[in-house]
Amino acid sequence: MSNAVSHLDNDRFLRALLKQPVDTTPIWIMRQAGRYLPEYKATRKRAGSFMDLCKNADLACEVTLQPLERFELDAAILFSDILTIPDAMGLGLYFAEGEGPVFERPLCNRAAIEALGVPDPEGELAYVMNAVRTIRADLNGRVPLIGFSGSPWTLATYMVEGGSSKDFGKVKGLLYDDPKAMHLLLDKLAQSVTSYLNAQIAAGAQAVMVFDTWGGTLTPQTYRDFSLNYMQQIVAGLKRENAGRRVPVILFTKGGAQWLESMAETGCDGLGLDWTIDIAAAQQRVGAKVALQGNMDPCVLYASPERIRARAHEIVKAFAQPTGHVFNLGHGIHQHINPEHVKVLVDAVHEAGFELRAH
Amino acid sequence: MSNAVSHLDNDRFLRALLKQPVDTTPIWIMRQAGRYLPEYKATRKRAGSFMDLCKNADLACEVTLQPLERFELDAAILFSDILTIPDAMGLGLYFAEGEGPVFERPLCNRAAIEALGVPDPEGELAYVMNAVRTIRADLNGRVPLIGFSGSPWTLATYMVEGGSSKDFGKVKGLLYDDPKAMHLLLDKLAQSVTSYLNAQIAAGAQAVMVFDTWGGTLTPQTYRDFSLNYMQQIVAGLKRENAGRRVPVILFTKGGAQWLESMAETGCDGLGLDWTIDIAAAQQRVGAKVALQGNMDPCVLYASPERIRARAHEIVKAFAQPTGHVFNLGHGIHQHINPEHVKVLVDAVHEAGFELRAH
Repeated sequence: MSNAVSHLDNDRFLRALLKQPVDTTPIWIMRQAGRYLPEYKATRKRAGSFMDLCKNADLACEVTLQPLERFELDAAILFSDILTIPDAMGLGLYFAEGEGPVFERPLCNRAAIEALGVPDPEGELAYVMNAVRTIRADLNGRVPLIGFSGSPWTLATYMVEGGSSKDFGKVKGLLYDDPKAMHLLLDKLAQSVTSYLNAQIAAGAQAVMVFDTWGGTLTPQTYRDFSLNYMQQIVAGLKRENAGRRVPVILFTKGGAQWLESMAETGCDGLGLDWTIDIAAAQQRVGAKVALQGNMDPCVLYASPERIRARAHEIVKAFAQPTGHVFNLGHGIHQHINPEHVKVLVDAVHEAGFELRAH
Repeated sequence: MSNAVSHLDNDRFLRALLKQPVDTTPIWIMRQAGRYLPEYKATRKRAGSFMDLCKNADLACEVTLQPLERFELDAAILFSDILTIPDAMGLGLYFAEGEGPVFERPLCNRAAIEALGVPDPEGELAYVMNAVRTIRADLNGRVPLIGFSGSPWTLATYMVEGGSSKDFGKVKGLLYDDPKAMHLLLDKLAQSVTSYLNAQIAAGAQAVMVFDTWGGTLTPQTYRDFSLNYMQQIVAGLKRENAGRRVPVILFTKGGAQWLESMAETGCDGLGLDWTIDIAAAQQRVGAKVALQGNMDPCVLYASPERIRARAHEIVKAFAQPTGHVFNLGHGIHQHINPEHVKVLVDAVHEAGFELRAH
């Protein structure tokens, strides 16, 4: 990258995160490149496995850009998986059909945690950086590119459970029974995530987001000690400027609406919100400190275009500040959503955002 | 039942819910009759299917009493399932091995909702009332018996999804796309739950609990309109005195810690808490209005006896009021928990409760 400020045709997303004036509310959608799009499914089929798709920079770039061809989205997000780091640590990630992610070699004891190394982002994870560079080149300044990682706690849940879990018995059993071993694991993961996200920033990611999908399964104290604490270390360790531009950081704990104040104190720029809180209430609680990203229930997209439009207007107007809001769903888009409904949503958000600022 | 106040050897549980003085903090455990007990698994094997066990009053009584033989628990809870009402409505409940509950005939459209009737608790659900009567007779006043039901919203999720769900796309899709159909369903369910719980009370249940396992998946507004609203109707419709004794009602919305104030306004006696809130904070918010039940993370039971004891003491002493607290886990006990650990917990809660009141 050159040292000159890189050009962006549309920088609404970055401006909203940094609370600079915007013409309308920006929107992107978690998992916007995904199975609800037939063109995604076609590329995925050509690629082979899900990880083959992640590891092929050209195809990862292709699917990253697909939703931008259909919808007036204000950001692109790197196509990848949150579990690339544990895979690079040697746990052997694969996706069992219809079962989600599985690790061939989950962490079974403290010795396995002690043996883990911190992966080199330009080594085992170079495929991610290649994808970032390829996408940035192809985007050519159209919209900003978001990089991301799973949070240390969220990565740890999959690494100890061996995959998805309903009750988190193994990983929380370890946390309660051997908190030192858990801290050792989380410390290694925080180091790994920090260098991984810094490498994504160096490769061209213009904002980064940390997905703490399972932080909401913790108690208030274990959330602070075992999840937020490590996200705070990551925020503190990130190089938040690149090519003359500030690189904002978004933290998202699903189910974390009770803990927004402490999340806002980490020094991040934005907080992701799920749908269990009214955005107006969140804005009152932490809106002076951070931008907010969210928070429509993904299931609203099953409803009629009229209802989708009405709900989008409600959320945009509930925020009621001239900047500091990035519209998104409260979690990833479901695979059975009609892409036409997504177009309705994206257009409704922009329309509502223009209306909000016209008054 | 006679009209005289029935005798109870141990009424701590009822007294704590009604905020009457108690000698120590009472405890019972969600799913205390369950797969972590080898004697439960033996009875379950003799019974046949899970529903065969629920429908056999003698065997349901046997498993209800099993945990009381091992631990100094302060209440028994009817052995049954939350999905008995939809089963009685004709949806055909069965339990697929390792998959949880499944309905043979889920609700696929509005016509199916319109066709539903309100089941007669002494008709299709008579087996539940027989179990209540049998258990009350066998308990012989040792501890109170808790009756229960799923909440209308929680029942609706299974009825529309056809079983368990990860993202609730079908049921929330219906809610957003055809709210009138959803209200029709929930209204029938609220009527059904009310008459079902009243029949349990008439048969001898000395307290009742409504399990809103999936209310926490809603937005603040849809929670109020589609879950809490119907639980409030149920609370208002219950006969809360029987055989000279007040019958307390507990509402439990898993993931509902943000909404405790509005739950407390329903007129219920107690609120169940999951582990995502500090009980001291919950006590400050709603402790003047209702009793609280909870709230240890079930995963603490995987830790060593010393750590279990320490956590039990922390929670009991955090409540810090002389009455109004029933100790419980924040959700059902996991199947792989060592029963010896449960004994440690129960004894630690009583010990801590005596200590709290000695100061």
